[in-house]
Amino acid sequence: MTDKPRVVILGGGFGGVYTAMYLESLAKRQDDLEVILVNRENYFVYQPMLAEVVGGSVGMLDTVSSLRRLLPHTALYVREIDSIDLEKKEVVLAPQFSHTPLRLSFDHLVVATGNVTSFRGAAGLFEHALPFKNLSDALRIRNHLIDTLETASIEKDPETRRRLLTFVIGGGGFSGTEVAAEINDLIHNLTKTFHSLDPKEMRVVLVHSKDRLMEKELGESLSRYAEQLLRKRGVEIRFGLYLTSATPQEAILSNGERISSHTVISTVPSSPNPLLETSKLPFVKGRIPTDAMMRVNGLENIWAIGDCAAIPMLAGKGICPTTAQFAIREAKVLAYNIAATIRKKPLKEFRFSSLGMLGALGHRSAVAELFGCIKLSGFVAWLMWRAIYWWKLPGFDRKLKVAFSWLLDMMIPIEAVQLKLHPSEGIAQLHFEPGEVIFHQGDIGDFLYIIVQGKVEVIREHPNGKKEIIATLGQGEFFGEMALLNEKTRSATIRCIEPSNMLAVRKGDFGALLANFQELRNQITATHRTRESLLKNPPSKDK
Amino acid sequence: MTDKPRVVILGGGFGGVYTAMYLESLAKRQDDLEVILVNRENYFVYQPMLAEVVGGSVGMLDTVSSLRRLLPHTALYVREIDSIDLEKKEVVLAPQFSHTPLRLSFDHLVVATGNVTSFRGAAGLFEHALPFKNLSDALRIRNHLIDTLETASIEKDPETRRRLLTFVIGGGGFSGTEVAAEINDLIHNLTKTFHSLDPKEMRVVLVHSKDRLMEKELGESLSRYAEQLLRKRGVEIRFGLYLTSATPQEAILSNGERISSHTVISTVPSSPNPLLETSKLPFVKGRIPTDAMMRVNGLENIWAIGDCAAIPMLAGKGICPTTAQFAIREAKVLAYNIAATIRKKPLKEFRFSSLGMLGALGHRSAVAELFGCIKLSGFVAWLMWRAIYWWKLPGFDRKLKVAFSWLLDMMIPIEAVQLKLHPSEGIAQLHFEPGEVIFHQGDIGDFLYIIVQGKVEVIREHPNGKKEIIATLGQGEFFGEMALLNEKTRSATIRCIEPSNMLAVRKGDFGALLANFQELRNQITATHRTRESLLKNPPSKDK
Repeated sequence: MTDKPRVVILGGGFGGVYTAMYLESLAKRQDDLEVILVNRENYFVYQPMLAEVVGGSVGMLDTVSSLRRLLPHTALYVREIDSIDLEKKEVVLAPQFSHTPLRLSFDHLVVATGNVTSFRGAAGLFEHALPFKNLSDALRIRNHLIDTLETASIEKDPETRRRLLTFVIGGGGFSGTEVAAEINDLIHNLTKTFHSLDPKEMRVVLVHSKDRLMEKELGESLSRYAEQLLRKRGVEIRFGLYLTSATPQEAILSNGERISSHTVISTVPSSPNPLLETSKLPFVKGRIPTDAMMRVNGLENIWAIGDCAAIPMLAGKGICPTTAQFAIREAKVLAYNIAATIRKKPLKEFRFSSLGMLGALGHRSAVAELFGCIKLSGFVAWLMWRAIYWWKLPGFDRKLKVAFSWLLDMMIPIEAVQLKLHPSEGIAQLHFEPGEVIFHQGDIGDFLYIIVQGKVEVIREHPNGKKEIIATLGQGEFFGEMALLNEKTRSATIRCIEPSNMLAVRKGDFGALLANFQELRNQITATHRTRESLLKNPPSKDK
Repeated sequence: MTDKPRVVILGGGFGGVYTAMYLESLAKRQDDLEVILVNRENYFVYQPMLAEVVGGSVGMLDTVSSLRRLLPHTALYVREIDSIDLEKKEVVLAPQFSHTPLRLSFDHLVVATGNVTSFRGAAGLFEHALPFKNLSDALRIRNHLIDTLETASIEKDPETRRRLLTFVIGGGGFSGTEVAAEINDLIHNLTKTFHSLDPKEMRVVLVHSKDRLMEKELGESLSRYAEQLLRKRGVEIRFGLYLTSATPQEAILSNGERISSHTVISTVPSSPNPLLETSKLPFVKGRIPTDAMMRVNGLENIWAIGDCAAIPMLAGKGICPTTAQFAIREAKVLAYNIAATIRKKPLKEFRFSSLGMLGALGHRSAVAELFGCIKLSGFVAWLMWRAIYWWKLPGFDRKLKVAFSWLLDMMIPIEAVQLKLHPSEGIAQLHFEPGEVIFHQGDIGDFLYIIVQGKVEVIREHPNGKKEIIATLGQGEFFGEMALLNEKTRSATIRCIEPSNMLAVRKGDFGALLANFQELRNQITATHRTRESLLKNPPSKDK
């Protein structure tokens, strides 16, 4: 479009947005470069406040700013990124309202795609643990918490009730600790409006693999302070353990302990954006190695910043931590270096050491460690936390809105209002552990299950109370097909006997498929007929 | 639980919530009844402001109030309703976090389930028209509008751009007119931040089957006023027409006219909640007939209220209109009658005639007709509209929040921020009309399509530009399977030759199914092989 050098920035987190912002102000003076930002959303999310969105002390829209408003001179492309072609110097964006991809050429590329929650290695976490990483995760967790309280409030069975009111958080770093504190606050606040719930029934369990909280960021004394504070408020803290597995009804810890819970939140592991794995960018321990000028090692005009980059700290102190504080400072130097490259001037090295760390602990308290020496805790630290983050909110509009909303919050108690926007999806992935019951005879039949891996047994309960195992099913087999064939209740109980991964397909969606795939229908109907006759004439005991 | 008579209310709209509210205040004095409200959400949505949520002049959470807060003495059951058993006097609620349904017995039942948007009879409306009925519809429309603007802002092809910037609204009643006005305002406001969009490219078309707007609610002069106002602002109004069909890229009108558009909104037809069709409640023209005391005809202790009920107007004036104004007044009498039945006192008849009608037209203007004689329009009517609706907002907290938010809106321009909460679903239902291209050769292959009904042709485009029809496919056949077999681009063009309904299955979801159903995989792979050889050795022209 223009013959100015084009800078394409991938990702609208702190690194990407602030790079664009600094580039805009550098270009304002000389107008010699074009800036394009590619992001999945048209808004910037103020990450440090996400835990407060879960708790409700910050409104969900208060963390969000319009990218178009923040970056008036940057061209915004709201798209998913399909691939990066380093040789052709092109980024391919996924189609939207069409099937034609969009190719975007660049002179300089800034990779600021952050990282994503990874559940690799732990069975069932992908399927059942709620990640806590972005705004939609925060809202999902909040909605889920309210769902569990709503359901518990009208549940009579004490075991189900306990399971609904137990919340397990994996990871005691900053975000895990903050979210545990906020969840604990939220459920205790909400009990006031749920007359049938008793605060004593609630259990918040924070599982951390190390021996103290936030050990990377805080010194021992503040760690202990945070720990005592949370313990006093009723949070159970379990050190030296981690989540190894999750099912729809349990969290399983590294010592084998099984906690009955419908809510497992994982804040621990992060892995790079899957997009980067298909590109030819270098990788070291899941991050893109750069030099001190933030140039990706061995590549020209390709830069990396923020959580996806491994930027060396000067004086051999390792690599820069993945915090907003660093990303913003990195962005300033990176923008300078890109402009300098274009203008053929010498580049700068990134030099910055942390100003300190702030962590909110809910309930108007926080911990802070500043310049490596000053330590604050409690209400004073919380006030500072709010003040600093408010100051850092981008844009005057946002600052005003958040100030108003905080003011209102002091007057109006929080409400347990959910926003249910979409019906849940048609196909769910599930994980079960041995001994768990997938469904009971007599239950409502709403899903068909396909065993991807593992083994289950089919149990027939006779009117006299006798239980009989009539079959075992394994990989590639399915059960619950009566749900699709218009029978309302389950004719047998299914119990898991090996760790199993399954697909659960909702009746409505599968019905449509079934009606149109003759072979599939035949397979399911035939299986069902065999089973029906099996139920009528069960095999002898040795089966 | 208690031996007090139990009143179960189904539905948390104006009718249901206000009935519970009035019952609470009646019971406060005598404490002789138990009230249960069953609703899908734990919040009450202030329906009259939904059009403003689309436009952004009312924040999406400002229309929402916590039911638990509004109704402190009512037991709230947040569940889907599975069925109503009139004989056993039981309501069956769908399972949540389990497979066991919940049975709720009642002494009195209040049916206040409202109605739902119905697309029966018009092809493709169910699949492609956006309904405008509840909060999630309003948010979906808003998100969709922003999506189209974002996509158009980086689209070069003029035809695609025009399609993205054309918005068709079916129905010129109150909600259709309001939403057309709000959409028109929104897109013109947003153009200011989208530098690459020209307001002249935008087209808002309001299609109405009658010869004037809001003819049921307003007199001729105000109708014409609204019409002129919208026309002046650029809205195209088409009288005497209605939507007969919609596809992913077109709206088709009753005169056969086809409008290229990615956005079709339907506000016209309503049908009763599908739940009621399976119950044994009487039905006349989609509503439940009651007597003047709101007792369902022929049933004891079963009451109906609001949009789902046909309540006679006294003096033979037909049945009560479906407005919030009426529902609130009905609720007061209904609550009284239930309490009176329990206390064995005489019942009251419902007598109320409309105070008037108010309709917002966006851009700080409205129309109002009061007491059948006073007519207002423009800014004065708008101020009154806001004042009355604000006054009617339930709860002091809500009033305060909305007042704050309106105050802020005067200072801060609206932002085109979307909230993308969930990825789109795995299986979509699509409708196409003859002549439309489903995908082009060379496009990215992201879906498998199954033809539920209709016919398409497969066109091979040769490098020399020659086009050849190599096959036609019909009901039960599928195409696009290469998307699932890891080929990236389409090897042929598919064009619709008969009105067709299809299922489109996203690669990711179907891949999982495919991997586990041997028969399905065989069928798809076999079909694909046949086609591959067909593409290599195309049949002679007579095919």
